[in-house]
Amino acid sequence: MIKKVLVANRGEIAVRIIRACKELNIETVAIYSQADKEALHVQLADEAYCIGPNAAKDSYLNFTNIISVASLTGCDAIHPGYGFLAENADFAEMCEECKLIFIGPPAEAISKMGIKDVAKQTMKNAGVPVVPGSNGVIAGVEEGVKIAGDIGYPVLIKATAGGGGKGIRVAQNEQELRHGIAITQQEADTSFGNPGVYIEKYIEDFRHVEIQILADKQGHTIHLGERDCTVQRRLQKLLEESPSPALTEKKRQEMGEAAVKAAMAVHYTGAGTIEFIYEPDGSFYFMEMNTRIQVEHGVTEFVTGVDLIKEQIRIASGEALSVKQADIHLTGHAIECRINAENPEKNFMPSSGRVETYLPPGGPGVRIDSAVYQGYFIPPYYDSMVAKVITYGKTRDDAIAIMKRALGEYVIEGIDTTVPFHLRLLNHPVFTSGKFNTKFLKKYPLNEQS
Amino acid sequence: MIKKVLVANRGEIAVRIIRACKELNIETVAIYSQADKEALHVQLADEAYCIGPNAAKDSYLNFTNIISVASLTGCDAIHPGYGFLAENADFAEMCEECKLIFIGPPAEAISKMGIKDVAKQTMKNAGVPVVPGSNGVIAGVEEGVKIAGDIGYPVLIKATAGGGGKGIRVAQNEQELRHGIAITQQEADTSFGNPGVYIEKYIEDFRHVEIQILADKQGHTIHLGERDCTVQRRLQKLLEESPSPALTEKKRQEMGEAAVKAAMAVHYTGAGTIEFIYEPDGSFYFMEMNTRIQVEHGVTEFVTGVDLIKEQIRIASGEALSVKQADIHLTGHAIECRINAENPEKNFMPSSGRVETYLPPGGPGVRIDSAVYQGYFIPPYYDSMVAKVITYGKTRDDAIAIMKRALGEYVIEGIDTTVPFHLRLLNHPVFTSGKFNTKFLKKYPLNEQS
Repeated sequence: MIKKVLVANRGEIAVRIIRACKELNIETVAIYSQADKEALHVQLADEAYCIGPNAAKDSYLNFTNIISVASLTGCDAIHPGYGFLAENADFAEMCEECKLIFIGPPAEAISKMGIKDVAKQTMKNAGVPVVPGSNGVIAGVEEGVKIAGDIGYPVLIKATAGGGGKGIRVAQNEQELRHGIAITQQEADTSFGNPGVYIEKYIEDFRHVEIQILADKQGHTIHLGERDCTVQRRLQKLLEESPSPALTEKKRQEMGEAAVKAAMAVHYTGAGTIEFIYEPDGSFYFMEMNTRIQVEHGVTEFVTGVDLIKEQIRIASGEALSVKQADIHLTGHAIECRINAENPEKNFMPSSGRVETYLPPGGPGVRIDSAVYQGYFIPPYYDSMVAKVITYGKTRDDAIAIMKRALGEYVIEGIDTTVPFHLRLLNHPVFTSGKFNTKFLKKYPLNEQS
Repeated sequence: MIKKVLVANRGEIAVRIIRACKELNIETVAIYSQADKEALHVQLADEAYCIGPNAAKDSYLNFTNIISVASLTGCDAIHPGYGFLAENADFAEMCEECKLIFIGPPAEAISKMGIKDVAKQTMKNAGVPVVPGSNGVIAGVEEGVKIAGDIGYPVLIKATAGGGGKGIRVAQNEQELRHGIAITQQEADTSFGNPGVYIEKYIEDFRHVEIQILADKQGHTIHLGERDCTVQRRLQKLLEESPSPALTEKKRQEMGEAAVKAAMAVHYTGAGTIEFIYEPDGSFYFMEMNTRIQVEHGVTEFVTGVDLIKEQIRIASGEALSVKQADIHLTGHAIECRINAENPEKNFMPSSGRVETYLPPGGPGVRIDSAVYQGYFIPPYYDSMVAKVITYGKTRDDAIAIMKRALGEYVIEGIDTTVPFHLRLLNHPVFTSGKFNTKFLKKYPLNEQS
C-alpha cells in the first residue's frame, strides 16, 4: 500500500484527497504557491512546501519542483486531483520515470483520450456510439457535402486541432457548409497551424450524461452509474445529480456497458468518466473521456456508497477493486451545487477577497467539500469554485428540499457567491420538472433576482 | 399537514427541528431565554421570541409563556425536542387543551413510562422481558430474602420513589440484604416520604442497547434497529453507534419485536426508544422508555435512511408512516460522538465562554449537528453538549477512521471540549475491538493524555 502521497493541487480537491489519505493512514505532503500559504490544504497536510509564485505555471504546473518535493520528502505517490497536471501525459510519464506512482491512468490512456480525433476513432473502433460524421479529416469540400447529405443538416464543422469552443462552426444547409468549410480551414490554419477539419452531426437538444468508471490493474472494469450534468452555463457545469432524471435502468446499463468498453479500449486503470451526449429518444454518443477524478464525483459517492478517492489510491497501490459490478446499485438521489466566488447579478464576475464570516450548513443529508474558513483570503489567481454543497435524499424532491434548506443557511460574507443563483435554479419549475436540456440556462439565465 | 411549529427548545436540537421544518415547507417559531438571544436557532427560525430569563425554569420550562407564544403566533404545533418539556405529561396535556398539537406521544403514554414501577409492571404484563425481581414493593424483609434466593445474588434494593442513582443499594448476600433493606427503607422514607423498596437482580456486565421505534395513529408500529450506547461516563452517553457490535440479526429482530410490543402496550404514537440491558449471553431486559426523540437519533437516520424528525412531524399531522417494517434494513455503520464544552483533563469541568475560532469538519461520511459558530458565546446555564459529530462508513472500522479524521480537523478554539477525549477513545484497543460493557470508562477513564 502507498504510504505517503504528495497532493499536487489546491483548494477543495486537495483537502478531499488529504482527508481520504488520513482515513487510510497515509501521510500527506501539500504543495502551495506563495498566494496559498494560508490555505486549508496546507494546514491539514502532515507537511507542506511552497513550490513557487502565484501563477499556476510557476507553481501548480511546475513539474520539476513538484517531483523534487515528492522525492525529497520520501513520497511514493502523487495525486494530481483535477485540472492542473491531472491530464498531462508528460507529467504522468515523468512521475513513472522518477519511481513515483502517479495516482491516475497510464500516460498512454491519457494521451489517447486527450487528442479529440484519435479518441473518437478509438471509440468507434471499440463499438462505442460516436456522433455520426466524417472518418477524421475530410479531403475537401465535396466529401464534406456528401457526408452532410448522408447524416442530414445541421452539421458541425470542427477543426481537428481546435477545442474548448474554438475552431467550430454550424452549417444549416449546403451553402453554409461550403462557405463554412473554407473559412474554418483558413482560420484553423492561422490559429493552430493545421487546416484539417471534420464534419459531425450537430445535436442541439441533448442532456450531458456521464458514466463513472473504475478499473484496477487486475483487469476488472466496472461502472458506477451516471451523473447528469445538463445544467451548464457556457459549457461550465453548475449543478450535477445522480441518478439522471432522464434515464431508465435499462438505458443506465446500456450506457454503463458502453463506458466500460470505452475504458477497456484504452487499457484504462483508475477512476475515469465517459461523457455522453444523451438525446431525448435515448440515443447516446461518446463526447469525451475525463481521465481523472471529477469535481462532481461526490454525487456518485452518495448514491453508490463507494469512496472514489480511496478507490483511486487502492488501485494505484496495486489492489483489486473493493466492489464488484453486482454490488453497485444507485440508492436515493444526490445533487451537487458548485458554489463559485462570483457575482451572478454582475454576469458572474469573479469575486476574490477576504471571507469575513463563514458558517457552512450541517444536519442530515448535507456534505460540504470546501477549503474556505472564516478569515480566509480567496486569491484571484485560480478557479473561482470555493465550495461544493452535496445533498442526499430518498428522492430527487427530497434532495432538492435539503439543498434549498442548506443553501438558505450557508453564511459566506465578504465575497459574492453563486448561492443566490442556485436558489433561483432550485426553485425554477423547469428545473424541478427534470425536463430540460443543455440550453436551459441560455433560455433562463437566472442571473438576476426576477 | 402541520403548517407552523413552535420549537420549544434550544441548541443543536432546536436547529435540527428547524431544518426539518424548512425541508417540509413548515414555518418555524423559535423561543429563547435572555442568555440565548444570539443563538443559532434564533437566527434560523422564521420568527423568534424571548420568553424569559436565563434559568430554564423561567424560560424553556415556562409552560404558559411557551403556549402563549405558540397561540399568538398562529402555530398549530409544538415540538419539544429532548430534555426540558419533552417528557412532561402535563405540558403535553396543556398543549392539547389549547388546541396545539404536541409533537410527541399522548400524555398518557408519557405518564405510564415515566413512573418506574408502573412502566416495569406494564412491560411485564405485555410480555417484554424485565429484570427478574419482586412484583413491585416487597411486604417485608422475609419476602426480599425469599426473592433474592430465587433470582440469586447479587441483587439491587431499589426505593420505588427513587431514581437517578438515588435510593439504590447492592447486596452480595443475605446478610447484606437484610441490613440493606432496613437502611434503604429508612433512607427512602426520609428522602422521598415513601419507604417502599423492591428487589431486582443486579446485572453487572451488560451493554446499553436501545431500539428506535415509530408508531403512527393508524396503528402501525415499527422498529428501526438498535443503537449501542454502552460507552458511558457516570450514566451519561458519550458515543453511540448503530448497528451494535454485539448483536446478531436474529437478536435484532427479537429485540425489535419486544420494543414494538412495549410501545403498543402503552398505545404509543410518534418516535420513541426502548432502552434495554443487554447481557453477553444475549439475554435482554427492559430498562426504560424514552418517550421523545433522542440525542443520538442521527446514527439511526444514517443506517436506515429515515429522517426521524420529519417522521415525527408527519405522524403528529395524522399521516401514516412513510416506511414499512420490511423497508428497514441497517446498511453500513454510523457512530456519533457528543462534543461537550468540558475539559476532560480537569474531570470534565464545564467550559463556557466565547468560541474564538470555529471550523467544523466536512467531506464524505460526516454529519455535523451543532448550534455553534465563530464568535458565539456558550452560556453556562444549560447542557454542555455543543455539537454532535456523526460519521458513516461501510463498516465499523470505516466509520471509526472517518470519525478520527473528522475530529482531527475540527477547529473549536476559545473553550475546552471533549474532542481530545474522543480521540483517545477511538484509538483505544478495547473500544476498537467492540468488546466492552458499561464499565469500560470506569476501567479506562481516558481523561488524561497517557
